[in-house]
Amino acid sequence: MEQIKHAIQDEYGDDYAWCYGCGRNNDKGLHFRTGWLGNKTITVFTPREEHMAIPGYVYGGIIASLIDCHGTGSAALALHRKNGYEPGDGKEPPRFVTASLSVDFVKPTRSGEALKAIGTVEEIHPKRWRVKTDVFCGKEVCAKGTVEAVVMPDTFMKRKKD
Amino acid sequence: MEQIKHAIQDEYGDDYAWCYGCGRNNDKGLHFRTGWLGNKTITVFTPREEHMAIPGYVYGGIIASLIDCHGTGSAALALHRKNGYEPGDGKEPPRFVTASLSVDFVKPTRSGEALKAIGTVEEIHPKRWRVKTDVFCGKEVCAKGTVEAVVMPDTFMKRKKD
Repeated sequence: MEQIKHAIQDEYGDDYAWCYGCGRNNDKGLHFRTGWLGNKTITVFTPREEHMAIPGYVYGGIIASLIDCHGTGSAALALHRKNGYEPGDGKEPPRFVTASLSVDFVKPTRSGEALKAIGTVEEIHPKRWRVKTDVFCGKEVCAKGTVEAVVMPDTFMKRKKD
Repeated sequence: MEQIKHAIQDEYGDDYAWCYGCGRNNDKGLHFRTGWLGNKTITVFTPREEHMAIPGYVYGGIIASLIDCHGTGSAALALHRKNGYEPGDGKEPPRFVTASLSVDFVKPTRSGEALKAIGTVEEIHPKRWRVKTDVFCGKEVCAKGTVEAVVMPDTFMKRKKD
């Protein structure tokens, strides 16, 4: 199993680290962590027992969530690298939000195993990136997804600070 | 607030009612419930406090999950009606799984409010249905989604009974 030493989510600013999917500060969250794997990106996640569609198979909404946060995390990794930084440098990375998400559920996903999301990142615009992701269960691709992620608008934080 | 008296998920067979999104038997699940609203379908859900992207806004993976189960539930409602039944009749409905899911996040979704997913169902094939969904926060559409749902293959249950 690949180990992700430096995940981008480890270095989001504290105000940006509450996401249910990938925020380290969210005690009840899923704690997805995304790092580089060569020039691809990787997130590894083992669904909890309750994350089932029916017994024995993983719920699609959890796979969609994995693809979602893997997408925003991968975009952040890529823009951070473009800016000259890597996770582990101690420099706060950019924070993305999801503009669109699509998932094809290629085959039923067995539960009880670690899933690996492997992503390919492409710049559409300096503030908009596309991430194509394959989700593996063992050696099989069980889902394929695409996320378009945009740099988080300032208006998000304005509301928080109201 | 619309009340959903007879939800399709109330009548799934017990073996099919474990979904993390919409299974009534999953103690830790989200318990989405989907019913008719005229010739549209509706699911109402108030995200939990932890279901945030950042404080003040709902996590996209939860919205994707809502659209996912709203899609399979709506397809089940529609095929059940085509077969001559309505939820509340006590007849076990068909059970769908998601083939594909897409979501456009139209605007940030405020937390602390009930979300309404409103769906339009279209038959593509007797075993494959498309559900287009608008997710409302108050009067605003905050996300738009499409699900293609297929009747659950027998192979799902075969594994469970291994």
